[in-house]
Amino acid sequence: MRPSHRAPDQMRAVSLERGVARYAEGSCLVKFGETHVLVAATLEDKLPPWLKGQGRGWITAEYGMLPRATHERTRRESSTGRPSGRTQEIQRLVGRALRAVVDLPAMGERQITVDCDVLQADGGTRTAAITGAWVALHDCFAWMKARNMIPRIPLKDHVAAVSCGIHAGVPVLDLDYAEDSNAHTDANFVLTGEGGLVEIQGTAEKDPFSEADLMAMLGLARKGVGELVALQKLAVG
Amino acid sequence: MRPSHRAPDQMRAVSLERGVARYAEGSCLVKFGETHVLVAATLEDKLPPWLKGQGRGWITAEYGMLPRATHERTRRESSTGRPSGRTQEIQRLVGRALRAVVDLPAMGERQITVDCDVLQADGGTRTAAITGAWVALHDCFAWMKARNMIPRIPLKDHVAAVSCGIHAGVPVLDLDYAEDSNAHTDANFVLTGEGGLVEIQGTAEKDPFSEADLMAMLGLARKGVGELVALQKLAVG
Amino acid sequence: MRPSHRAPDQMRAVSLERGVARYAEGSCLVKFGETHVLVAATLEDKLPPWLKGQGRGWITAEYGMLPRATHERTRRESSTGRPSGRTQEIQRLVGRALRAVVDLPAMGERQITVDCDVLQADGGTRTAAITGAWVALHDCFAWMKARNMIPRIPLKDHVAAVSCGIHAGVPVLDLDYAEDSNAHTDANFVLTGEGGLVEIQGTAEKDPFSEADLMAMLGLARKGVGELVALQKLAVG
Amino acid sequence: MRPSHRAPDQMRAVSLERGVARYAEGSCLVKFGETHVLVAATLEDKLPPWLKGQGRGWITAEYGMLPRATHERTRRESSTGRPSGRTQEIQRLVGRALRAVVDLPAMGERQITVDCDVLQADGGTRTAAITGAWVALHDCFAWMKARNMIPRIPLKDHVAAVSCGIHAGVPVLDLDYAEDSNAHTDANFVLTGEGGLVEIQGTAEKDPFSEADLMAMLGLARKGVGELVALQKLAVG
Amino acid sequence: MRPSHRAPDQMRAVSLERGVARYAEGSCLVKFGETHVLVAATLEDKLPPWLKGQGRGWITAEYGMLPRATHERTRRESSTGRPSGRTQEIQRLVGRALRAVVDLPAMGERQITVDCDVLQADGGTRTAAITGAWVALHDCFAWMKARNMIPRIPLKDHVAAVSCGIHAGVPVLDLDYAEDSNAHTDANFVLTGEGGLVEIQGTAEKDPFSEADLMAMLGLARKGVGELVALQKLAVG
Amino acid sequence: MRPSHRAPDQMRAVSLERGVARYAEGSCLVKFGETHVLVAATLEDKLPPWLKGQGRGWITAEYGMLPRATHERTRRESSTGRPSGRTQEIQRLVGRALRAVVDLPAMGERQITVDCDVLQADGGTRTAAITGAWVALHDCFAWMKARNMIPRIPLKDHVAAVSCGIHAGVPVLDLDYAEDSNAHTDANFVLTGEGGLVEIQGTAEKDPFSEADLMAMLGLARKGVGELVALQKLAVG
Repeated sequence: MRPSHRAPDQMRAVSLERGVARYAEGSCLVKFGETHVLVAATLEDKLPPWLKGQGRGWITAEYGMLPRATHERTRRESSTGRPSGRTQEIQRLVGRALRAVVDLPAMGERQITVDCDVLQADGGTRTAAITGAWVALHDCFAWMKARNMIPRIPLKDHVAAVSCGIHAGVPVLDLDYAEDSNAHTDANFVLTGEGGLVEIQGTAEKDPFSEADLMAMLGLARKGVGELVALQKLAVG
Repeated sequence: MRPSHRAPDQMRAVSLERGVARYAEGSCLVKFGETHVLVAATLEDKLPPWLKGQGRGWITAEYGMLPRATHERTRRESSTGRPSGRTQEIQRLVGRALRAVVDLPAMGERQITVDCDVLQADGGTRTAAITGAWVALHDCFAWMKARNMIPRIPLKDHVAAVSCGIHAGVPVLDLDYAEDSNAHTDANFVLTGEGGLVEIQGTAEKDPFSEADLMAMLGLARKGVGELVALQKLAVG
Repeated sequence: MRPSHRAPDQMRAVSLERGVARYAEGSCLVKFGETHVLVAATLEDKLPPWLKGQGRGWITAEYGMLPRATHERTRRESSTGRPSGRTQEIQRLVGRALRAVVDLPAMGERQITVDCDVLQADGGTRTAAITGAWVALHDCFAWMKARNMIPRIPLKDHVAAVSCGIHAGVPVLDLDYAEDSNAHTDANFVLTGEGGLVEIQGTAEKDPFSEADLMAMLGLARKGVGELVALQKLAVG
Repeated sequence: MRPSHRAPDQMRAVSLERGVARYAEGSCLVKFGETHVLVAATLEDKLPPWLKGQGRGWITAEYGMLPRATHERTRRESSTGRPSGRTQEIQRLVGRALRAVVDLPAMGERQITVDCDVLQADGGTRTAAITGAWVALHDCFAWMKARNMIPRIPLKDHVAAVSCGIHAGVPVLDLDYAEDSNAHTDANFVLTGEGGLVEIQGTAEKDPFSEADLMAMLGLARKGVGELVALQKLAVG
Repeated sequence: MRPSHRAPDQMRAVSLERGVARYAEGSCLVKFGETHVLVAATLEDKLPPWLKGQGRGWITAEYGMLPRATHERTRRESSTGRPSGRTQEIQRLVGRALRAVVDLPAMGERQITVDCDVLQADGGTRTAAITGAWVALHDCFAWMKARNMIPRIPLKDHVAAVSCGIHAGVPVLDLDYAEDSNAHTDANFVLTGEGGLVEIQGTAEKDPFSEADLMAMLGLARKGVGELVALQKLAVG
Repeated sequence: MRPSHRAPDQMRAVSLERGVARYAEGSCLVKFGETHVLVAATLEDKLPPWLKGQGRGWITAEYGMLPRATHERTRRESSTGRPSGRTQEIQRLVGRALRAVVDLPAMGERQITVDCDVLQADGGTRTAAITGAWVALHDCFAWMKARNMIPRIPLKDHVAAVSCGIHAGVPVLDLDYAEDSNAHTDANFVLTGEGGLVEIQGTAEKDPFSEADLMAMLGLARKGVGELVALQKLAVG
């Protein structure tokens, strides 16, 4: 039995609320159960120097967590003087995931920064962030289209993410914090709406895992992402 | 006429929502119109070294702002490597304001950290933060009392804050961003429930201001803080 | 009785010595009793990027303290890696105070940096710094006028500052370190030569203070600043 | 045809040279073709505070690259003031990979730090580092056993790593820099001697990849790691 | 002819003024012509951790320069985030020079920090700092002796320093800024009262220098240090 | 007897191996006994801003040490956030030494960065670095000449360096770590092929040293550098 009493292939309650950040070009408050992430997309007319003159745009992501988003308070990164390794790893992951479904040349020489700030954390913050970021990015593109900056929304597909794990010997979908702390294996899957793989990150926390474990988790992830993409369609439809 | 169409002595719509941070010992989402600040109080059983053994507790505050809380995106302080001077100034102000109404010896040798994170900023974030922080702090003390850590809530009084300014020659209450940008004088007042002054910070942005201006602003502040304290009483009552 | 045996409305011995920094365009060694601050004004022909092309100049201030200016040695800020919150707060205060009396368009697109370095600290370093900085700034402008860079000295008025407090229940003028440590309330006042208010910063260190306290301190500050402005006139006259 | 003229399932020439760092308790210079990594294991008798008293040891890894290990010189991380996100990501990966095969309680309350410094980089530095680090760690344990600090070498299995990718539509083993720059998909696999999965990190650089691609790459990785483990056995045998 | 019209073996006017820092245990304002350095010695009862329990004390030095001590304003090191390489080099030099003449075991397990802050810089700040630091250190020891912390002043000898150079082909003593900028060779000499060498640092700024040049500069340095030591004796006598 | 059983005027075994860094324009692995330094020269077509437009090039050096190059592991400077004072001191020394023999105008407005990374440290790393850096720099110039970027190799002379010391009362050449730790005096000499002095740095570690000591050490240094220059000629000849 999972601590959350969910079936092994059952996601937490997921919601995607658009337009929550008054000043952002696109935004989304995404909830995977008690994990809440506020995503805001900011359009900038200029690119970082190393990207200029290549005839394409760029999507970058930043990630943060409120100090008391967690059970124990964590130190503010501004007081430690630098983003942690974990923060940077997540930022890079979210950026790659989004860029995989954006037609970068079609967006022009502009940059969109997607800020993902965790208001409350109960496991799976990076997968929730990716899922909500697609909605915020979509709305940022819609904002640009409405102002005739681009002729169409330059998204090639949906992208969403979910974590899976082997908990008490059973492959399970969408780990919350209690499960994540005890899982023997933990894997994050980023998939497109059409089912293509964008990113897999699987880690054995204790003993190594088998190819069969990997396949079982991938199957669960396909189911979960299917549901997330359906919710994204509802949200922006 | 104020840009917001408010009367000179009219506050923005204010709300104080308790219990919004699932894991914090006390929390409050405070809204002054479009300014939204999430305050979370964290109890720690240990004091910083320089406070140990003095038979009293301590209240400290930290302040942050989501990058897209503002019209223009601001850089994340973790990427600049340090909290800005403005951030530190506000942190110190919030901490002093709260300590002014806490019976520090009565709370025991413990520290409470009050995190004030601005989700959306439309002027007056520091005054909203102080006002909401009193509620979060109250609930943190209530949490401690419920666990018999303290016999009673060690608050000597309410404390709340509001800004005033001289806008288009007229003293006005509770500046929003549009007014703040154009005000000739800007002053923050922190007052107790009984009307005592805890902090005054008044600055001439262009020409110097007169003693009469100061008195007019203080009068408005008394009215505004009176309303804020009434709302605090409703919130925790 | 004040620890310094001064009357409640009596300033410490104040002196303003010009031309003490051989290489600076303007300089002043200001003493408020045992508080000694060396102020040096540096003219630069270029503005920070965000100020360019607006047809006006800028005054900025920096503040530092020698490690053994104080009773206990304080750590050098270069070894802590950043200016402290207190340092930044003072720097911003001094800059605002000076800009309030300068005709910025009349000085051309130039920046003057005013360095205030505390050689010895016995309370009131920020108020001494502002008072001496006006003299150093005046002499920097005189240096520019002598070279025909500007037709006249673009100062609209004098500006000076003093602290007041409630010590042993009595409002007193110009707190020294011994008084500052024990005062229940501490307030800094920045006023112009004509008596306009540029900045008020009042803080209750223990119990809140009343409006009557505020008025009494403001009255003392007017007296003190009057004396300081008279000394500034003598110094540059 | 691969740029290196290797067959799709062909590793580069691999060598593992032990005992290259005179002062280290264990060391290995590992070469995957033109990628050269110097690994040194350092034994410390004390643990970081958060690990003390749990009756087990710890393995941590650090990673660095000489500035001119690469085609273009890269800035020294000591001059940028912090390890980059990429560096931290690799450090965490190497540490997790090694801990997966170490019997941490059997090594006592000690820490071993494994430094992986890239002398020359031609792709696959992190996989070479893991492969060589196992040898250095083995020799560090042998050093401890020789001094009767531990009764036996507390390694549960071998661990080694290799990258695979989809290059010009073909799954290939052990990417070098030229291939890595052009591969559509890039995946790192960390496996044990018995074939268990310790870590998978697969990323679509351009288009998403399919489950079939993933399986093909995993098959190649099994072959490659099999060869690497055989070389590890020869090296320490 | 030297720019300063001094004879090749002529020092600038030197003065050593004791007791200038009201709160320090020992202090000295040293002037070598227009180079002015304020030295303050601070006694601390505790040692850094790596020196504890060895039955001896320690002398350390810190060095700073006011931003407008120089012809052109230099940036404040607290704003660059770290002491420069030059600053650290000088700090280490001053500390070594002083420790060379102190009986460290005789001073007990205490540390004295010698702060050398340059108020005005016209070349030779490090040599002036060493020369004045000996006086401040002496007075700090006298302060300790007066309080029966030590039975006698634990100084084994005097130490002082001077720079020499080859200017326009001629070896000259005590370079000022104008000479230093043009000298082909620049050397700093730290010598004891008895003439022993504590430190030599000689650098060819353009062409290499000869052994004869070195000997000539050493001869001049002996003369200069002789005069400095005589002044130190007068100062503390 | 020296710990190494060498005669007082005997260098350690020295080797200079060219072309060891595959991607660098010039490189050299220099060994002074068990001290091993990898030097790589990188040509950049652009100068730092403050050097532009002066019609001459620039040579700069950076220095680093692998964490386990030493008996005890040292912390990685990227994790301390800055190069240490010692590192910066060495970097500046190596740069000055090389520039002393380069015809800067003849190399054009280009910069060469010479990275000196210590793989193993047994004393004398800075002198080995200078000696090997001359070879790497020579080969970088040869690379440029081969591409017709310069008509000839713009080196005016050789430069090499060695340390000397007073060990057990006897002046000795080329200190290793065991000697360096016990020497009463330690001096580094940088000399040209023609015997000119580029840099002398002599430090009394315990008691002051005499002029006779200095002369004896200089004589040994001349012998050692003579041998080093002969090896440089063999290496590039």
